[in-house]
Amino acid sequence: MNIGVDYYPEHWDESRWPVDAKLMREAGITFVRLAEFSWCKLEPTEGNYDFSWLDRALAVLHKEGIKSVLGTPTATPPAWLHERYPEIYPADAKKYRLGFGTRLQRCLNNEDMRRYSRLITETMAKHYAKNPAVAGWQTDNEFEGNLCYCETCAAKFREWLREKYGSLEALNEAWGTIFWSQEYSGWSQIPLPWEVKCGKSHNPSLQLDYRRFASESTVSFQHEQVEILRANAPEQFITHNMMGLHDSVDYFELGKDLDFVSWDNYPAGFWIQGEPTRSDLAHDVIRGIKGRNFWVMEEQSGITGWETMSRRPVPGQIRLWSWQAIAQGADLVQYFRWRSCLFGTEQYWHGILNHDGVPRRRYREIKGFSEELASLSAELDGSSPENSVAILNSYEQNWAFQIQPQAKGLLWWDQVRRYHDALGRAGVGTDVVPMGADLSKYRLVILPGWYLLRERDAEKLGAYVKAGGVLVVSARTGVKNELNTCRTEPLPGPIADLAGVEVDDYDPLGDATCPVTLADGTSLSASVWADALVPKGAETVASYAGGCFPGEAAVTRNETGKGSCWYFGTAGDAAFYDSLLSRVLEDSSIEPYRGLPPNVAAKYRVRNGATWLFLLNLGSAEASVPVHKGAKHLLGPEAEGDTVRLPAYGVAIYRI
Amino acid sequence: MNIGVDYYPEHWDESRWPVDAKLMREAGITFVRLAEFSWCKLEPTEGNYDFSWLDRALAVLHKEGIKSVLGTPTATPPAWLHERYPEIYPADAKKYRLGFGTRLQRCLNNEDMRRYSRLITETMAKHYAKNPAVAGWQTDNEFEGNLCYCETCAAKFREWLREKYGSLEALNEAWGTIFWSQEYSGWSQIPLPWEVKCGKSHNPSLQLDYRRFASESTVSFQHEQVEILRANAPEQFITHNMMGLHDSVDYFELGKDLDFVSWDNYPAGFWIQGEPTRSDLAHDVIRGIKGRNFWVMEEQSGITGWETMSRRPVPGQIRLWSWQAIAQGADLVQYFRWRSCLFGTEQYWHGILNHDGVPRRRYREIKGFSEELASLSAELDGSSPENSVAILNSYEQNWAFQIQPQAKGLLWWDQVRRYHDALGRAGVGTDVVPMGADLSKYRLVILPGWYLLRERDAEKLGAYVKAGGVLVVSARTGVKNELNTCRTEPLPGPIADLAGVEVDDYDPLGDATCPVTLADGTSLSASVWADALVPKGAETVASYAGGCFPGEAAVTRNETGKGSCWYFGTAGDAAFYDSLLSRVLEDSSIEPYRGLPPNVAAKYRVRNGATWLFLLNLGSAEASVPVHKGAKHLLGPEAEGDTVRLPAYGVAIYRI
Amino acid sequence: MNIGVDYYPEHWDESRWPVDAKLMREAGITFVRLAEFSWCKLEPTEGNYDFSWLDRALAVLHKEGIKSVLGTPTATPPAWLHERYPEIYPADAKKYRLGFGTRLQRCLNNEDMRRYSRLITETMAKHYAKNPAVAGWQTDNEFEGNLCYCETCAAKFREWLREKYGSLEALNEAWGTIFWSQEYSGWSQIPLPWEVKCGKSHNPSLQLDYRRFASESTVSFQHEQVEILRANAPEQFITHNMMGLHDSVDYFELGKDLDFVSWDNYPAGFWIQGEPTRSDLAHDVIRGIKGRNFWVMEEQSGITGWETMSRRPVPGQIRLWSWQAIAQGADLVQYFRWRSCLFGTEQYWHGILNHDGVPRRRYREIKGFSEELASLSAELDGSSPENSVAILNSYEQNWAFQIQPQAKGLLWWDQVRRYHDALGRAGVGTDVVPMGADLSKYRLVILPGWYLLRERDAEKLGAYVKAGGVLVVSARTGVKNELNTCRTEPLPGPIADLAGVEVDDYDPLGDATCPVTLADGTSLSASVWADALVPKGAETVASYAGGCFPGEAAVTRNETGKGSCWYFGTAGDAAFYDSLLSRVLEDSSIEPYRGLPPNVAAKYRVRNGATWLFLLNLGSAEASVPVHKGAKHLLGPEAEGDTVRLPAYGVAIYRI
Repeated sequence: MNIGVDYYPEHWDESRWPVDAKLMREAGITFVRLAEFSWCKLEPTEGNYDFSWLDRALAVLHKEGIKSVLGTPTATPPAWLHERYPEIYPADAKKYRLGFGTRLQRCLNNEDMRRYSRLITETMAKHYAKNPAVAGWQTDNEFEGNLCYCETCAAKFREWLREKYGSLEALNEAWGTIFWSQEYSGWSQIPLPWEVKCGKSHNPSLQLDYRRFASESTVSFQHEQVEILRANAPEQFITHNMMGLHDSVDYFELGKDLDFVSWDNYPAGFWIQGEPTRSDLAHDVIRGIKGRNFWVMEEQSGITGWETMSRRPVPGQIRLWSWQAIAQGADLVQYFRWRSCLFGTEQYWHGILNHDGVPRRRYREIKGFSEELASLSAELDGSSPENSVAILNSYEQNWAFQIQPQAKGLLWWDQVRRYHDALGRAGVGTDVVPMGADLSKYRLVILPGWYLLRERDAEKLGAYVKAGGVLVVSARTGVKNELNTCRTEPLPGPIADLAGVEVDDYDPLGDATCPVTLADGTSLSASVWADALVPKGAETVASYAGGCFPGEAAVTRNETGKGSCWYFGTAGDAAFYDSLLSRVLEDSSIEPYRGLPPNVAAKYRVRNGATWLFLLNLGSAEASVPVHKGAKHLLGPEAEGDTVRLPAYGVAIYRI
Repeated sequence: MNIGVDYYPEHWDESRWPVDAKLMREAGITFVRLAEFSWCKLEPTEGNYDFSWLDRALAVLHKEGIKSVLGTPTATPPAWLHERYPEIYPADAKKYRLGFGTRLQRCLNNEDMRRYSRLITETMAKHYAKNPAVAGWQTDNEFEGNLCYCETCAAKFREWLREKYGSLEALNEAWGTIFWSQEYSGWSQIPLPWEVKCGKSHNPSLQLDYRRFASESTVSFQHEQVEILRANAPEQFITHNMMGLHDSVDYFELGKDLDFVSWDNYPAGFWIQGEPTRSDLAHDVIRGIKGRNFWVMEEQSGITGWETMSRRPVPGQIRLWSWQAIAQGADLVQYFRWRSCLFGTEQYWHGILNHDGVPRRRYREIKGFSEELASLSAELDGSSPENSVAILNSYEQNWAFQIQPQAKGLLWWDQVRRYHDALGRAGVGTDVVPMGADLSKYRLVILPGWYLLRERDAEKLGAYVKAGGVLVVSARTGVKNELNTCRTEPLPGPIADLAGVEVDDYDPLGDATCPVTLADGTSLSASVWADALVPKGAETVASYAGGCFPGEAAVTRNETGKGSCWYFGTAGDAAFYDSLLSRVLEDSSIEPYRGLPPNVAAKYRVRNGATWLFLLNLGSAEASVPVHKGAKHLLGPEAEGDTVRLPAYGVAIYRI
Repeated sequence: MNIGVDYYPEHWDESRWPVDAKLMREAGITFVRLAEFSWCKLEPTEGNYDFSWLDRALAVLHKEGIKSVLGTPTATPPAWLHERYPEIYPADAKKYRLGFGTRLQRCLNNEDMRRYSRLITETMAKHYAKNPAVAGWQTDNEFEGNLCYCETCAAKFREWLREKYGSLEALNEAWGTIFWSQEYSGWSQIPLPWEVKCGKSHNPSLQLDYRRFASESTVSFQHEQVEILRANAPEQFITHNMMGLHDSVDYFELGKDLDFVSWDNYPAGFWIQGEPTRSDLAHDVIRGIKGRNFWVMEEQSGITGWETMSRRPVPGQIRLWSWQAIAQGADLVQYFRWRSCLFGTEQYWHGILNHDGVPRRRYREIKGFSEELASLSAELDGSSPENSVAILNSYEQNWAFQIQPQAKGLLWWDQVRRYHDALGRAGVGTDVVPMGADLSKYRLVILPGWYLLRERDAEKLGAYVKAGGVLVVSARTGVKNELNTCRTEPLPGPIADLAGVEVDDYDPLGDATCPVTLADGTSLSASVWADALVPKGAETVASYAGGCFPGEAAVTRNETGKGSCWYFGTAGDAAFYDSLLSRVLEDSSIEPYRGLPPNVAAKYRVRNGATWLFLLNLGSAEASVPVHKGAKHLLGPEAEGDTVRLPAYGVAIYRI
């Protein structure tokens, strides 16, 4: 359990470094990440490397007991490289070249980009492999899918397709290019999804393959760096700073090459103000990438923003977010950044210190958290979250819904969040795992609309249910095969038997609502989508009461083997999920956290039978939370009787 | 009276064709349209034609008694053609080439595009001229004006201008290029309306000529196909599927080459949800193109949408829309499409069947309609709507208002709809005809803002009124001449004498409102535009009561010869038009349908003195409609006394 | 004191000219501006000049006693020039060339553009230098900063940078290009702020230098014309028609070369409807450019708009706006334009006459104003506004806030207007002057957020206060240096001692609000921005009462020498400013106009001790205004007792 900070010695006069290092140590900081945007200083002109400044910075920090994570600096190639190889610049969907001046101005498929990236990575790895101040590596920075539209990408995409489909005949058949007379008679005829007469409405199969190709381009770019680092610096770890719910690259694939994953958490960043449960989901998503604990490589340390700023984090929020990260499986929280930059695009992405370098309120808050964490480190070290519910996650499904959103509210994270939020309100911890995960350890598995359903996955889920699991299947599951073309069986396709239903009709509700009733008379409100279900063995749990399909089944439950499969033919508001999931949890023999008030999260870490409970008040009002009498108080307000009063943004920790 | 379906045999395994054909026959389908997007299958590589699959498909269908309409497949040129002639791709207003991947990716002025289009058309025509399964042809698909900005278009536009104006001096004079120093001293200096420093605010005369040129480019492209079809397949009819209120090509000109016109009707398509009167207007507009009955070539048969879907048609709506089409002059209703496509951009543009190919609710609804239609076909065959009110329609006016919208609410269809909706609410059938139509058969003619007014048209309208007609002239009439430059006479220009008024001032109201009162004290609310009128012989019907021109005349009536000319110097809400048009109808001796409730349309077809009344409940609530006692009930709920209760989306038909 | 009109003889048949000239004279018009868009008629083909038509037009006008201002016609280069030198066309941020068809289609850095501009200017100057009908010159038309992205601009920008910084090392250091690895190792690597991967989020220092460069490009373009005019037509004045609150070119710099400045005033133009105080501010801004009286070169004379029109000016508004201009320092009001153009983009930018050329309502209103003005001309000639309050204005600050808006409501004119409007409501006249102005004549100086604060300016302000002045400093002052990089001192940087405060934290409120209380218990509402202030000698005037910084200081006052410095750490609504500024005015011994009702402006002109009071009712309701008993009534309604009742849009003038 450590805290760290992202530090840019190259932004400051060398005389300031010892001052900073001392202030860091005094705040309890033991890790820094450096160098990920410093290529032009490490290699000021082609082939002339200068690592001396970084050597000195590492030494200054190490002297204060601080270890370093080095970023390979490939997210911002230097100007001299672009001048020599202008085709490194990526192109947009109208073929305009996005040039120099910000960052990420590189196509990861460009061979010159790759060659120079390998060179700087290898040179750095050799130089720092034995440096005791260096703990490990971060590849590049915040990788995205290589959504570039340059001719190099076009050529490589065609190669990739030839590899995948073997022949044009097979590709034409797979994509259904007969639609709108698009059959290709030569590989060179295949376009990228450039802007066309009808916007961007290319063939959906082409679009999905392009998204896969763009993701794989990034994964293979990282793979080259990982191979070099493993070969040259075998004793140092390798991680990458992901972006939570970002989705342009398949994080499961990107994570495979890493020792552990990290992510960058901006809970009140300027584009996501007021969504306290977004980071909650993101922590679980990131923990699910490798199914183990992770680092927060960048944690919000103040106001964020480029040209326009977010609101200031309220006092206590930074501490709260830090404990939230720990509670959900972080083993290190590293703040971005040490001191607010004086120049460049991110002048107002505030660090722990303001531009004036004076320790003020946020420094004191983080120092306080650091002391709290240190006091519990021995207690918590080696623990991690363990849950009996899993939501299945897939980047390919995510892309398919982006390509065809179908109805408002069906986007992948919209679907996942409705379930995850409801489980959070019930105080039930949730893993977010890939289809390939071992499901046998879960009592409940939730399948958001698994749009592209392979037969083998349907079979796997069937086996899970038969063995006693409870499965929730959502509308829009099984609509398509993995080619992004529609299936010809009645919906929900290969999972219809397991669910025991047939979809006879459907209505894309979007924002419209439709009343639904349960057998006990409970009235709920459905929206987003409505399947009209014909039970084929399943029992009807909820029916439409007026609106789109009066009297027809909306939610069903089908027993199979030792388990059961629920089919949610529609979606709804919080009350809809709270009501239905309480029945599903009961069916799964999972106990919710009774009496948990709104905006309070209950999270658990476990180690060898010991369990720690974290109560996190994400809201701006005081909350009273029931606590088990035998719980041992470790941090935060003490319980009065069986209730603890958590102040706004308050945290309490118990061992139970 | 027939029903049909749009069918894509090339999208399905050949073994399915007989199944589909049988299901079609059982639903009463006797027509299909095919092949309009199949160029790549008809000519897989240059010059290698393969019609065998289409021959077989036609035979399978014909065996079930189904006749075919063949589309010339030029809306989606194949990839091999574009690869050889990349200049076929059209350019946008920033000269970006819109390439391969959707449809309409062709410039109709490109000579290679034209040559290959003639070739495929001629080859098909020769092959199918004597095939008894082929009833006729559809040219291309949903033609639009060739709003392309490529250099070929620029060159042809300059030729077109040289042809029109003779000399640069004449063009400079006509357009007023002296404004902003734009006089051309060489033809090659004339631009297309490419994006410029001030957005797209080119000289309005240039813009209008470009719109005319773009429309004529499309008309002449079709003309080449029509000539080939007439020469090679003289016994088969030729039509084209227009798009209702679409306006980028002059449908009057496009229609001249056709035997009859067709159109594609999506009343609840995803971009026009909840506008039940839009199809009502569109049917009348389309019938007015050639002044006779028409086909619906594509009628909505389910949920529509590409990436995002519309709501599902409510049960009963497809039947209602089908009867609405018949009531307003359709002789065939053909559904788009048979079965929802498994692949490509239009996967969610639903056919009668879902992707699974199982006949479900919509199949049954359409089959039911087909049986109803069959039962009345002998009764209705040969009948058509006949009306005593005409609204004048013009694509050139439409373009001029697009180029200069002037005030919110003045766009052409906005203006037309306000009158058309009010006449619909009064149960008065309306034709929508060109200025060149024979007006003598109408008792009332309505002129929306006829912005570009030619003297000869003003004279024609004068003669109409003098002979006893009633004419309604709207604000913004006579502002300009046909060059899209302003007239120098006081407004309303050449029609001022006929209207007996002079416009002394005006105020572009847009959404703002202004109270208006009639002589009898009725208070109304004006908006959109306000002319301050000085009567020069006309009587004042309505005056502004406060607001922009307190006490000044807003609506006038001027008797001339045996008729009268009303001038509407302002526009307003439904109550405004209902109140004023009731007086205009009285002046025209036209009887409204008294007691017609909101959202119920009353339409008539006539043949040799016999009249059929169609009552269509476009609303979602039951409605009580008065019916003449002597009316003979043919379909739908029977009247109780002199009233019939129409359920939501219900239809009733009577002979009167 | 004169009135004039903008006239385009080239748009009308020569036979109409005498009719127009006579109507002008009858309306009291004594000036016209001509020729600024007539290059293609003055030089129809390269080198072939034809001034004969303009000579005749000047003569016709001069015969009626009308003098002319000639525009150099360089805002609309002719088509032949572009055809020969297509690189004159400017490029947008994606390098698309903005071509022919509207206006301003020229890059002012292009050498061919400059050469031909010099030539036409020199030829005109020589031809008209001695023409008695010509009073002076207008350079070009409505200059904007040359925000062009062409390669010529890129090359010249690099030269400009080399001149400014001397070396790449210095530039890299100044801009902080080490951020995101952007250090340049060659001048040719420096981009313009073209669109890049992250939108337009280039380095803020690069962006600011580009804005400076773009402004200087325009200033130097004008300078070439001014030099030629001075050399060849030394007896004629030179002015330019600025655009009020436009800000892409530094008007202080542009104004330096001119004899006096002019501006174009469209108070109810289509993009600014309903902002009566906007012109009020703009008049003061323009008068501040050279610190002396000015001309209105274009005054709204009717409905404006290109494709869409504004509402009509209400009767009385044109007269009101004309008197408003005079009251705030205009010596001539010239209406745009004489007669509405029949063709071209500005057909609906209405002149005094409509398209029909018949004098109607607006002609009569302007004629009436002209007679009123003539009756008071002897009285008012030579007078001008003199004020004891100054708001400091800066184009460089303005650009910096555009580059980084930071929080909603911080844009430069937003900040200036909040103060200016409040002073206007208090009836206190205000100058708007540059930092270089002589401040000693002001009792109160207001500094909006002076984001980029130079030490020498901080010192100047300190000296002003010490000498007895009252200074108001706003939040975000002193954040940066002139390089647009952040300062390292605690905020407010170099002015902290003068203000006697330190900013310990801040919160970008934007639209959010925060309660504030004054010592006397007054409750106010803050928004936009909140600084948490630690007084270092200053007294606390207002504190936050809950919200972001409960109990901390929000507004302070610090006495220094004979004066005082107020620091406004937050902004707010009208009540906020009215309440606080009343205290500041008292501190400055400035008497407000007590009892001035909302929407009524009180303005003063002064000459040799005599003072004229203008009361302007900018609102649409009658208002009662207290008037000093001794005031001598000159125009408008007479006072009853000590109160005058001003009708809507009414004007009253008194000598006091």
